Amino acid sequence: MIAEIIITGDEICSGVVVDSNSSHIAQRLEAEGIQVVRHNSVCDDIDTIVSMLKETGRRADIAVVTGGLGPTTDDLTAEAAAKAAGVGLVVSDIAQSSIEVFSKTRNRSMTDIDRKQAMLPEGAECLCNPVGTAPGFQLKIGRCNFFFLPGVPFEMRRMFADSVLPRVESLCGNEREFSFIRNISIFGLTEVDINHRLAALTEKFPGIKPGFRAIFPEIHVKLYARGKDKNICNELLIKASEWVLSKIGDNVFSVDGESMEAVVGGLLRRKKASLAVAESCTGGLLSHWITNVAGSSDYFLFSGVTYSNDAKIKVLGVLPETLKRYGAVHEETAKEMAEGARRVSGAAYGLATTGIAGPGGGTDEKPVGTVCIGLATPDAVKGYKFNLTSGNRSMNKKIFAMKALDLLKMELCNSGR
Amino acid sequence: MIAEIIITGDEICSGVVVDSNSSHIAQRLEAEGIQVVRHNSVCDDIDTIVSMLKETGRRADIAVVTGGLGPTTDDLTAEAAAKAAGVGLVVSDIAQSSIEVFSKTRNRSMTDIDRKQAMLPEGAECLCNPVGTAPGFQLKIGRCNFFFLPGVPFEMRRMFADSVLPRVESLCGNEREFSFIRNISIFGLTEVDINHRLAALTEKFPGIKPGFRAIFPEIHVKLYARGKDKNICNELLIKASEWVLSKIGDNVFSVDGESMEAVVGGLLRRKKASLAVAESCTGGLLSHWITNVAGSSDYFLFSGVTYSNDAKIKVLGVLPETLKRYGAVHEETAKEMAEGARRVSGAAYGLATTGIAGPGGGTDEKPVGTVCIGLATPDAVKGYKFNLTSGNRSMNKKIFAMKALDLLKMELCNSGR
Repeated sequence: MIAEIIITGDEICSGVVVDSNSSHIAQRLEAEGIQVVRHNSVCDDIDTIVSMLKETGRRADIAVVTGGLGPTTDDLTAEAAAKAAGVGLVVSDIAQSSIEVFSKTRNRSMTDIDRKQAMLPEGAECLCNPVGTAPGFQLKIGRCNFFFLPGVPFEMRRMFADSVLPRVESLCGNEREFSFIRNISIFGLTEVDINHRLAALTEKFPGIKPGFRAIFPEIHVKLYARGKDKNICNELLIKASEWVLSKIGDNVFSVDGESMEAVVGGLLRRKKASLAVAESCTGGLLSHWITNVAGSSDYFLFSGVTYSNDAKIKVLGVLPETLKRYGAVHEETAKEMAEGARRVSGAAYGLATTGIAGPGGGTDEKPVGTVCIGLATPDAVKGYKFNLTSGNRSMNKKIFAMKALDLLKMELCNSGR
Repeated sequence: MIAEIIITGDEICSGVVVDSNSSHIAQRLEAEGIQVVRHNSVCDDIDTIVSMLKETGRRADIAVVTGGLGPTTDDLTAEAAAKAAGVGLVVSDIAQSSIEVFSKTRNRSMTDIDRKQAMLPEGAECLCNPVGTAPGFQLKIGRCNFFFLPGVPFEMRRMFADSVLPRVESLCGNEREFSFIRNISIFGLTEVDINHRLAALTEKFPGIKPGFRAIFPEIHVKLYARGKDKNICNELLIKASEWVLSKIGDNVFSVDGESMEAVVGGLLRRKKASLAVAESCTGGLLSHWITNVAGSSDYFLFSGVTYSNDAKIKVLGVLPETLKRYGAVHEETAKEMAEGARRVSGAAYGLATTGIAGPGGGTDEKPVGTVCIGLATPDAVKGYKFNLTSGNRSMNKKIFAMKALDLLKMELCNSGR
């Protein structure tokens, strides 16, 4: 089974937007054992899209097309698909009711513009969109089964999982080879370090194909196993990931994709412990991450984003003398912030960041990238200082917040409580 | 002049790596007035690459190909290019000396593996690589001028600027058309609303091509103008964007890409006013956005991320009676939170969010998506309540935070101070 991916849109073709849909779709198809041979991006021009669909229709077994299904004038995909298949556009009752149902959940009624989206190529099967107005559809062009989906990543991903995967599976039938992935998430080592430590991987596990991906500030090692027998693949993956864990150690924070904040949340939950945070340089990012985890209100009580010294003193009870003596960016200040957050909120643990995210504010002694982290536990208050310069303000905020969570994770793993 | 981009590599096709080269190349070509009509990614298979090169050779004037020029067995691009052009591979003296020069800068001598990279298709012009071993080359296949570059982004970018752009410019000669973009960012209207209001755009401004893009919770309207005369294009863009502004009004928060938090920051700076924030349901996202703006410490003083009621009372001074009478999600609570943040920090403005981001915690009276926003100004304290359900926890956090910033923006724009 050979697949192609087609992304439509001027914003992709002109380079204004980096396409992330292709990579998502390709990974999911490859996991089903389908080889993705081409990705194609085309601009919003009807003739270009039509000829692309016809070409792919001659080459591939399966194609996923995203974009151009919305209500606006630059949304040309349904029309192009109809032309390529040599059919007309007709109103799809299923599409129309799918749009109606979605409009109702948003408390608005259908407009003429919405109705445009219910026009599908004759013979197409509607793929309902539970999270947006534009429905997708399946249509055979040439020898290829096309799946047309909206370009909005969130809608595309949901519809791909709900509507495309099951259909692709039944198209594959017995030809299917399974592909399994394990995603090992690492923080605190460089790609070169990891590569070096895992140099013997392919020799030790010839059935495993490794992939390395840096998603700043994390590095993900993906292990792929492909074959017709699920159990054999799975066993191989388990052995290989155990070997990877033995080589990387504590820098692995999760296997199978859990985020650092979810790992920390799980540890707090198991300990029935609560957390408060005090942030200066991370500016709210730490609390934002922690509260991205559903149910985090069970253990997360409070964060004081104290950008000004005054707020550090008033809200967290940092001593003016400490600030005067050491400055805002110092282990002692971080310790008082962490203890302050813990005291104010009554939490079991307090975690604080204070540092220089840049671009301004650096000095010779404390350059951009300097971060001090305070960690108050039920037993002690610890202070740390690091230099983690990493490129720009936004990256610095991320690596500072990640380092703080990493320290808390280590503390929670190692403490007996 | 029509261009295509071709990216080779299994790691791109299988989705393990997200391709960022296409977007870079496309932007640079579009800036030169060359329309990029297609991007194509192909796996490391010689026949697939050959047929792709032949197809593009029939369609495009210019093509940039990246990847597959290295020394390993899966580097097939030079061989594929030779096949597609119907020529053989020959040793290029220029390529060989370029590799020698680079090897010397790394204090190593040329190996047999390096020599493979000096084999170029007959008739190709070598493009030297000053920052890596693999040289690139230019070759005509069909009617199209192909530029072959390494896939490593850092090498590709350097060689594109040094070797490809000057050659492309001379190929364009007088045919050169420039392309200009204006990005109008909108919050608070649906894509359908916007499309309806701008229905007459293409009729009124035939030289303008519009593009719509939803980057939740914003919608960006992009206006493209293309032509041989820079001034005419620019004037047309200015007129068209004024017309768009007149149709969309206050829902436009920026022209040319500034983020909402940067716009709000600019308004605060101009007023010499400071800001404090109190967050419940947005969990730190509001402060994270605000502090993403470099220099935000000039006006941003404090955020209290008060997830627990206890923290709302202790840190922000919300009255226990208010929480008892109205609950945490209520305009009155939001008002006291905003005023509390303002009072605690001494800021001119206080902005507060309290709501239900989900997935849990919703009731019939206050379903998931309910958000109350408090805005304390030097003159008054205002409370608002909205239902902004939008799909999931992470999206709800975003739309809540955006709505709060939007209310503050309106207040700052309309108040005389």
